[in-house]
Amino acid sequence: MKLYDGGRAPNPRRVRIFLAEKGVSVPLVPVDMGNLEHRGETITRLNPLQRLPVLELDDGTVIAESVAICRYFEALHPEPALFGRGALSTACVEMWQRRVEFGLFMAVAAAFRHLHPAMKTWEVPQIPEWGEANKVKALEFLAFLDRELAGRPFIAGDHFTIADITGLVAVQFMKPAHIELPQDLDHVRRWYDEVAARPSASA
Amino acid sequence: MKLYDGGRAPNPRRVRIFLAEKGVSVPLVPVDMGNLEHRGETITRLNPLQRLPVLELDDGTVIAESVAICRYFEALHPEPALFGRGALSTACVEMWQRRVEFGLFMAVAAAFRHLHPAMKTWEVPQIPEWGEANKVKALEFLAFLDRELAGRPFIAGDHFTIADITGLVAVQFMKPAHIELPQDLDHVRRWYDEVAARPSASA
Repeated sequence: MKLYDGGRAPNPRRVRIFLAEKGVSVPLVPVDMGNLEHRGETITRLNPLQRLPVLELDDGTVIAESVAICRYFEALHPEPALFGRGALSTACVEMWQRRVEFGLFMAVAAAFRHLHPAMKTWEVPQIPEWGEANKVKALEFLAFLDRELAGRPFIAGDHFTIADITGLVAVQFMKPAHIELPQDLDHVRRWYDEVAARPSASA
Repeated sequence: MKLYDGGRAPNPRRVRIFLAEKGVSVPLVPVDMGNLEHRGETITRLNPLQRLPVLELDDGTVIAESVAICRYFEALHPEPALFGRGALSTACVEMWQRRVEFGLFMAVAAAFRHLHPAMKTWEVPQIPEWGEANKVKALEFLAFLDRELAGRPFIAGDHFTIADITGLVAVQFMKPAHIELPQDLDHVRRWYDEVAARPSASA
């Protein structure tokens, strides 16, 4: 199998961090998103939506969507469990993965895509007002997350999960999106310092 | 357990259709979203994000997020499998569930929330330009989906899955969002007629 990778972009990073946490090594095919290679013939054939990363299996089967790729590796390599164990824990991880993805990851991405000059040809039409509205949404979600993290070490409970990966990548994506992490979010800062210090975070 | 339900809103419908496909009956607690009851004390205590549906277990544990609730019931009642079976099929269903949710369901919801006069106090700020941009995104996704459905009966393959539930609810949500299903999308229309005719669709 091989993983068509998109470098520093947030979704490719999510999958690389997941694989590092699993201790799984997959051959990477670098795709230069800066040069719009993800809109070229190879990626378009694999994923008509022209998004990265894309996993291609040896028989040619394609799995797109970062969380779907992660779930595939979770089934092949169940330890350590990053999607939970059992009905309730699995549902709880899914709830938090979705909350963080929709409330933070997507809000930060929208702020970046609708406000950054480099995204003018990527996000058409670019709507600055929507970018600004998403900065507010991201900050509101972080305040909610801070109250939640007062009571537990990781986003979905006592263990590091895919929800923490999505959160880590989202917080780091705030820098190019020009959203500052508020100083007074002590619990988010404690959580962030911990997850950003894991070896996987440099993947 | 009990399911705090939001009537005709799309996310509550997704879970009710899922339960109907499973043949599982869960006591419903009706919540009147028209009267903003989902922002009242009861729901805010269960889900600070004030979204429905919310599942409350007998011990008080809360599961929010429609797909997380569905995944909980999938674990308790594995048949019929609506999230796939085995590593590859599970990943494929997740890929399509996400594609349909982000490419269609959320685009239709954004068109509705940013253009419908009744949503002016729900979506602040309401940005009509973003609503119009999402009508275009929804139609582009439907054209992509039509090409995919030329080769298989259901969205994720040979079997009805949660991706079809998300797709069905999204297509029906196009009516209040004032997006018309293009006449020439033969495969989407064939698929839609089939899934809308299932007994679960009236749940």
